[in-house]
Amino acid sequence: MAGQPLTIETPDDLRIAEFRDIRERDLTGRQNRFIAEGTVVLRMLADAHAAGRGFSAEKILLLRNRLDGVAEILDRFPKDVPVYVADADVLDGIVGFNMHRGVLALGRREQATETILLDALPEQALVLVGCGISNHDNAGSMFRNAAAFRADAILLDETCCDPLYRKALRVSVGSVLSMPYHRGGDALALLSGLAERGFAIWTLSPRGETDIRQISASDRMALVVGTEGEGLPEAVLSRFRSARIPQSEGLDSLNVATATGIALFAISSAMARI
Amino acid sequence: MAGQPLTIETPDDLRIAEFRDIRERDLTGRQNRFIAEGTVVLRMLADAHAAGRGFSAEKILLLRNRLDGVAEILDRFPKDVPVYVADADVLDGIVGFNMHRGVLALGRREQATETILLDALPEQALVLVGCGISNHDNAGSMFRNAAAFRADAILLDETCCDPLYRKALRVSVGSVLSMPYHRGGDALALLSGLAERGFAIWTLSPRGETDIRQISASDRMALVVGTEGEGLPEAVLSRFRSARIPQSEGLDSLNVATATGIALFAISSAMARI
Repeated sequence: MAGQPLTIETPDDLRIAEFRDIRERDLTGRQNRFIAEGTVVLRMLADAHAAGRGFSAEKILLLRNRLDGVAEILDRFPKDVPVYVADADVLDGIVGFNMHRGVLALGRREQATETILLDALPEQALVLVGCGISNHDNAGSMFRNAAAFRADAILLDETCCDPLYRKALRVSVGSVLSMPYHRGGDALALLSGLAERGFAIWTLSPRGETDIRQISASDRMALVVGTEGEGLPEAVLSRFRSARIPQSEGLDSLNVATATGIALFAISSAMARI
Repeated sequence: MAGQPLTIETPDDLRIAEFRDIRERDLTGRQNRFIAEGTVVLRMLADAHAAGRGFSAEKILLLRNRLDGVAEILDRFPKDVPVYVADADVLDGIVGFNMHRGVLALGRREQATETILLDALPEQALVLVGCGISNHDNAGSMFRNAAAFRADAILLDETCCDPLYRKALRVSVGSVLSMPYHRGGDALALLSGLAERGFAIWTLSPRGETDIRQISASDRMALVVGTEGEGLPEAVLSRFRSARIPQSEGLDSLNVATATGIALFAISSAMARI
C-alpha cells in the first residue's frame, strides 16, 4: 500500500505545496501534473497507476477523518507514494475553503505519442475526436459519454483544453484516467492518421448530410465534434462525411456534450457495441 | 416598442434596485420574478411576453453600447416596459463585475395551474417529468433538450429547483421561456394526472427493464427522470414501466441532462416526431 500517513500541521508545509490554492494554480500549466479530487477519481487513479496506462500518483492528501474510508484504495498504490493527512482547518488553509472533498491526490501523466495510441487500437474500434473543445465541463462530459458508450479512444486537437484540468476530470467521473487519449496536433493531421488506418470518419454538425440514425456501420468509426458556437472548421467539414442529429428547427443546436452523447449512442448502437 | 432609454448614473438608483448583486439575490425567493441575461434570452422573453405565455418583462437594463444591437428586440416589448442604460463602470457597480453580458431584464411569470397545463396538451403529446432535479445546470439542459426533441411540456415536482434561476435559464438558452411547464406538487400526484389523461409513463433508470431503443410508441408519452445519485424514488419506480439506456457496465450512469437528451431522442424518434 501507499506510505504510512504523515500529519501536516500547517498549510505552509513544503511537502504539500502543490496542493496550495488549487483553484488558481489549476489554470496554469503544470507539466503533466494534475489534481485528482474525491474518492471515485482516487480509485480510478489507483487503477490507472496499476494498469501502467501512463498515469502515476505522486502524493496523496487527505482530511484525517477520510482516512479509514479510503484505506482499501490506498492499499492499491505503491508504498513509495506518500500519504499526508490534515485536520479540516489545515486542509482549508492549504487548498481553500470548500475546494475539496477531503480526498486529493497529485497525479502525473506521461503522454504516449499519437502514433502509439493509434497503432494500438483494435480491429473494430470507435474513436471520438474533439476540435476546439475549450470548455472544461464539455471536455469532461465527452470522456464520460465516450466511456459509457464503449469508445476505444479520444483524440483532442491542440486547440482543446486539457482534460486533466481539475473540473474536467471531476465532470468525467474519472474517465479521463481510464479512456486512452491523446491531446495535441492539428485536427486535419489527426484525422488523416485515422483515415490511413481505415477509419470511416463522420463529422457531427447541425447541417450534416446524413441523419445520425441512418449512418452505416463500419469496423472502424470516428466521430468528430467541434465547439458549439462556431462548429467544426470548413476544412474539416468539406473533407469528410457529415451527420446530423434530427431536432426542432430554429433552435440553437444541442449542447456539445449532449450532442456527443446522442451521436455516440447512435453509432455504438449501429456498431452493435451496446 | 419599449420605453425611451433612461440613463442610470449611479449604482444605487432605486429604479434598477432589483438588479443589484444578482449573484446573491438569485438564490433567494423572488415571487416569480427572474433575471434574464443576454441577447438570446432577451429575444425569447420578448416572444414569450408577446405570446401571452404567462411571462412579462418589468424592466430592461442595458450597457449603453449594446443599445443599438438590441433595438429590434426592444421594438417587440410594449412601450410601458422601461429601458435603462448605464455605462460599464455603473453597470459593474450594480450587478457585479463580469456578472452580465451587457443585456439584462427583470421578468415575471404567472404560473398557470397544473390542470390548465395538462388539459391544454394536444392529443399526441410528449411530456418530460423531473423529480428532485436540484442542479441548475441540469434543469436548464433538460429544457434545452426537451425543446430540441419537440416535447410539449415539462412537469417538475416540488423538490426540483426553479428553472427561472439565472444560470438554469442561461443554460436552457431561453427554452424555459418557450417550453410550457409547471413546477410544484408531489411526483406521484403529477404522474397520476398524466396517467388519467392517457399518458404511457416511462421512468428512466440505469436498471430499467426495457431498452430505450425498444419501447413502443404511444400517442401520449411521458418520460420521468430523477437525480443522478439517488435516482427516482422507489414509489415511482415500482408503479410505472422503466426504460434504460444501454451502456458500458461498471460505470456511473450518464449525467442526467445527457441521459434525458438521449432518452428524448429515442422516444421522439419512436413517436416519429423527429
